[in-house]
Amino acid sequence: MTASPPDTTPAAPLAAAAIRAYFEGGAGDEVTLRANAAAWRAIGLRPRVLATPRQVDTQVTLLGRRWPTPWLAAPMAHLALAHPDAERGLALACAAQGAGLVLSTQASTALESVARAVLPEPQRGPLWFQLYPYGEREDWLRLVQRAHRAGYEAVVLTVDAPVQWAGERERASGFALPADWPQPNLPARPETGTLEALLARAPDWDDVAWLRSHSPLPLLLKGITHPADADRAADLCDGLVVSNHGGRVLDGLPPTAALLPAVVEAVQGRCPVLVDGGLRRATDVLKALALGANAVLVGRPLVAALAQGGAPGVAALWRRWHDELRGAMALCGAATIDALTPALLCHGAFHPLECL
Amino acid sequence: MTASPPDTTPAAPLAAAAIRAYFEGGAGDEVTLRANAAAWRAIGLRPRVLATPRQVDTQVTLLGRRWPTPWLAAPMAHLALAHPDAERGLALACAAQGAGLVLSTQASTALESVARAVLPEPQRGPLWFQLYPYGEREDWLRLVQRAHRAGYEAVVLTVDAPVQWAGERERASGFALPADWPQPNLPARPETGTLEALLARAPDWDDVAWLRSHSPLPLLLKGITHPADADRAADLCDGLVVSNHGGRVLDGLPPTAALLPAVVEAVQGRCPVLVDGGLRRATDVLKALALGANAVLVGRPLVAALAQGGAPGVAALWRRWHDELRGAMALCGAATIDALTPALLCHGAFHPLECL
Amino acid sequence: MTASPPDTTPAAPLAAAAIRAYFEGGAGDEVTLRANAAAWRAIGLRPRVLATPRQVDTQVTLLGRRWPTPWLAAPMAHLALAHPDAERGLALACAAQGAGLVLSTQASTALESVARAVLPEPQRGPLWFQLYPYGEREDWLRLVQRAHRAGYEAVVLTVDAPVQWAGERERASGFALPADWPQPNLPARPETGTLEALLARAPDWDDVAWLRSHSPLPLLLKGITHPADADRAADLCDGLVVSNHGGRVLDGLPPTAALLPAVVEAVQGRCPVLVDGGLRRATDVLKALALGANAVLVGRPLVAALAQGGAPGVAALWRRWHDELRGAMALCGAATIDALTPALLCHGAFHPLECL
Amino acid sequence: MTASPPDTTPAAPLAAAAIRAYFEGGAGDEVTLRANAAAWRAIGLRPRVLATPRQVDTQVTLLGRRWPTPWLAAPMAHLALAHPDAERGLALACAAQGAGLVLSTQASTALESVARAVLPEPQRGPLWFQLYPYGEREDWLRLVQRAHRAGYEAVVLTVDAPVQWAGERERASGFALPADWPQPNLPARPETGTLEALLARAPDWDDVAWLRSHSPLPLLLKGITHPADADRAADLCDGLVVSNHGGRVLDGLPPTAALLPAVVEAVQGRCPVLVDGGLRRATDVLKALALGANAVLVGRPLVAALAQGGAPGVAALWRRWHDELRGAMALCGAATIDALTPALLCHGAFHPLECL
Repeated sequence: MTASPPDTTPAAPLAAAAIRAYFEGGAGDEVTLRANAAAWRAIGLRPRVLATPRQVDTQVTLLGRRWPTPWLAAPMAHLALAHPDAERGLALACAAQGAGLVLSTQASTALESVARAVLPEPQRGPLWFQLYPYGEREDWLRLVQRAHRAGYEAVVLTVDAPVQWAGERERASGFALPADWPQPNLPARPETGTLEALLARAPDWDDVAWLRSHSPLPLLLKGITHPADADRAADLCDGLVVSNHGGRVLDGLPPTAALLPAVVEAVQGRCPVLVDGGLRRATDVLKALALGANAVLVGRPLVAALAQGGAPGVAALWRRWHDELRGAMALCGAATIDALTPALLCHGAFHPLECL
Repeated sequence: MTASPPDTTPAAPLAAAAIRAYFEGGAGDEVTLRANAAAWRAIGLRPRVLATPRQVDTQVTLLGRRWPTPWLAAPMAHLALAHPDAERGLALACAAQGAGLVLSTQASTALESVARAVLPEPQRGPLWFQLYPYGEREDWLRLVQRAHRAGYEAVVLTVDAPVQWAGERERASGFALPADWPQPNLPARPETGTLEALLARAPDWDDVAWLRSHSPLPLLLKGITHPADADRAADLCDGLVVSNHGGRVLDGLPPTAALLPAVVEAVQGRCPVLVDGGLRRATDVLKALALGANAVLVGRPLVAALAQGGAPGVAALWRRWHDELRGAMALCGAATIDALTPALLCHGAFHPLECL
Repeated sequence: MTASPPDTTPAAPLAAAAIRAYFEGGAGDEVTLRANAAAWRAIGLRPRVLATPRQVDTQVTLLGRRWPTPWLAAPMAHLALAHPDAERGLALACAAQGAGLVLSTQASTALESVARAVLPEPQRGPLWFQLYPYGEREDWLRLVQRAHRAGYEAVVLTVDAPVQWAGERERASGFALPADWPQPNLPARPETGTLEALLARAPDWDDVAWLRSHSPLPLLLKGITHPADADRAADLCDGLVVSNHGGRVLDGLPPTAALLPAVVEAVQGRCPVLVDGGLRRATDVLKALALGANAVLVGRPLVAALAQGGAPGVAALWRRWHDELRGAMALCGAATIDALTPALLCHGAFHPLECL
Repeated sequence: MTASPPDTTPAAPLAAAAIRAYFEGGAGDEVTLRANAAAWRAIGLRPRVLATPRQVDTQVTLLGRRWPTPWLAAPMAHLALAHPDAERGLALACAAQGAGLVLSTQASTALESVARAVLPEPQRGPLWFQLYPYGEREDWLRLVQRAHRAGYEAVVLTVDAPVQWAGERERASGFALPADWPQPNLPARPETGTLEALLARAPDWDDVAWLRSHSPLPLLLKGITHPADADRAADLCDGLVVSNHGGRVLDGLPPTAALLPAVVEAVQGRCPVLVDGGLRRATDVLKALALGANAVLVGRPLVAALAQGGAPGVAALWRRWHDELRGAMALCGAATIDALTPALLCHGAFHPLECL
């Protein structure tokens, strides 16, 4: 990984190890980070044999539209730290492979630039924008309107990170964002200084309702872990993402594979339920879909692929995942994503050790 | 291990590490591969004392005939990659030690050649042929008829692998079958190219019924994991093998030790139930038999023995296993295989860690 | 770590490795030591979103007085072995950061000297004195009166260590307290020699009642693990500390995270319940408070911080913990310590492996 | 460890590594071996505080006589391989420290020589003789009579090892007993050659009854794991030892800590119940006694101590264990062994990982 942002030269270039620590690390003791991946692995499969479908279709419907794959790139900050291809490279690779994209508020590339690169692609997946609620309500809305004008199709409001602090690995590495690092999509300067300043601006359900009523775009909430919050979100919004922020904010949150079923049960189909966290290969995605997710967001594997191979690396990863997903669906007798149901799964099949 | 096939010289010889990766690796994250072995180890034994039998008899009856041991070599592809003795060496060693053999469709030796080496051996075990359903029904049947003419006594149809893809370990190693590698038993060229081509040819229950009605040989299904499939197979076929393909096809399938009891319960004695996957020593076999299996297939330990010591290595392994099985039966108070019952076993005796 | 006590020069200076072994080791196989830390990590968090408090207040009330933080430095012996700043450095750093202090009977600094350094600090936490019941009842009382005169606000009687012996790690390291090592707070020479001499002096409930009735200071019992003892202590004393002595006395005692709920249930609010053992970061403390503890004692992390950075190192640790606690409370929707309740927690969220 | 037997010089001296493999290894995959030790560690302690006894007494009554400690050296073969002090050194050290001794049939020293060294010791523990049932009933009885004449006070008949084979570690090491290795206590040449020869001589319950009725000494059975066998043994014999042969014979037997309670329940106090396997420190013994064992046998720790330090090493180990046992009893409020009861224990206190 090299730290060459597209439009600026930092005074002191970041060490590759610090960048890795930033991207690969998690909060606290990284218990949630480890558990996220282990929990998908721990779910067993119980397919039938001699029931292979003649064709396999990986399409899903989200927000009223049909997309080629059930996955989107999760919002990830500062991708120019990982590779010069940065967000545009990620977006192009996703679009070429039928994967969606949720662009981060903290992207190092302007949202318009990313959209221009992707929207013409006929096979692309959804193009959504992730919103960090910095500043005032009106700041958020202005940014949403800007994303709308640029062609984004939905807004994903992150609700699980009103406060953040660096993880141990990141702190030990000495990671710090270079001065003047480009963040062209911030709705406002992020609050800094005292915790109280951050808390004073933290959004609540009223803010969400206000934004939903003023937004020209569908609104999803990202960071739901509790079924009671899911129930409320399903009444108020257009979708939700079960997420513990990839284990990057509050260590101790359970793995999303364990949280998903209760959320699906609470939502009762009122809106799409997405999930992220710990998905490391296509069979993990298959399990998430079988548990009731309508689609998934994928983060860390894409950063690793981008850092190592730029946009072509990301495209190759999606191609491999697509092959694996179709193969696994065939082996599970599922011609379509809808045919993936909890009956396919079994729990307690493995000892935890075998899943680490 | 050296890559010298019996009748050809590959352009670029395969590295020993790649061959090991091919033989030792598994699908995905190898969770199923690890779990297979750990699950047998995790089963405890509760024998009685002062009840030692005067003699110990390891014979079993399969398909109406009595055999010296309860084990057969599992079908394994491309054994010439492991050692020049290849399939003939394996077959001879098995026959000399009273073990059976299930020759793979993907053997690097013609099935007739293997049969000629083995059939005269008076102490040998069963000689069966494993069938991959490549091509059309008629192709399968022609191959079964060919096996029948050569003296094979049953056909084992693999039903759990209509689709396969290389595991991570194998892919990382750069393994690829040398050009013109001998596969003299293929019923037809394996489908390659698009997934759809593979799916179009995947067998279903009608195909199985058709083959059963036309085959001159008894038909067993290999790759059963679900009790409902076992129930159907027991009505339609002459036997079945509980198998997750040694963890080589779909990672996430539970360990076969966990699957076996429900299959035995579903079959209710209508046909023999065999099992493979993770059996690493004779006491694992003893546990499988006590859980209700009529016999077992053994794979990876034999490849390792063949690679290291050729046919004599395989013979030595079987001798050791036979000694250990007889000794363990004696310690368990079992004069015969039938005396091995679930009452001998206890579950939950060990922490998972002690079994890895 | 260097072994330069404040007022004496040991004949043979202790090796740094032996000092580490003394401070970092535990009793027996260190099962309790490891379990203490793992058990806090294993507790999951289930906060709600969009409910961030506007302010976060970490104050707690203990023995009728309000303090800035919910934590005190646990009593630790011989801190001059860790760093020349020793107990005065620890005390100053705690006082500056609003943390309390429980000074050990085995401190290498006179209790009056420590009190003089701390009491003027306006933001300080509680100043308590830990009592080892060496000698006769009257010896104990004299020491309590001395602590009272010096300004200490409570006495913490250790009841779980009438007998101690060196752990394996400590023994292997060759650790031995230097000759003439200063222990200016001993109520009497500690009994040595035969076990019987120790047992003859071991306190019982009558001793506790006697001390409670004569002491000018509130009395807490430290080392309660059994709910029946907690019930009795709650009637007799002013508070108790759930503790297994940090895994340093009797290996095999369960982790305090597992013991705390039954003690809280038994006490029913009659007196404050504190807990120590295995708390390695502020989110561990948050979990302890949510389980019903009124405050916590922290030991090993402070020794490590003192050894590495002296008083400033301890101050930096408390500052980091305070930031993390406030941030985590905000993420958990808790404006005050009282708002931390068991509803915030979930058990069984993680595999044990992820918590080691 | 050096392989100098007392009275002979082997042609090719055994490598130290092979001797270690022999003494330290176990059967099969050593699952039982590992589980034995882990299971004691996994048991938690729940003592009360402020209830310290004034004195601690470690005496136990076995077969009608009072002994200073609850432990005996387990029967161990070929100790001259470990250290020239061999069985006499072990016996002296045990006697000096109040520990008992069960001399092995396979000792490298004549039983009379061992007895002469030990019997005069006033503080010694029990002196028992372990019997392997080689040869005919009459051979056994002659050996028992010989042991009786030499002063042994009981016979411990091993019933769990009619068949044995070398473990993997031992086999890999190339261990083989030197030619003409002294085994002066064999009742007859051990059967070798075919398994059938071994089985033909294996004892049954009738043999036990016969030996019991003819033996001048009390008879205990060693190797009981099943409560039904324990029930029968309690009617027929003078005691039993719950043992899986230290994990050296049949891998897969559950750890003895897990087996003991059901045996104690089945025996209902009709005879003493001893236990061995995995006891690695005095608190493990305390747990065994609290579970209902009347005494324990200790093996591997003694071999290690003998190999490293000869008789003085063994004596030092027992001294350490005695100190630890007395200290732990005091901390558990137990003045006598009888005061150790299941109420002191708690199960499930630890994650398995913490106990390995």
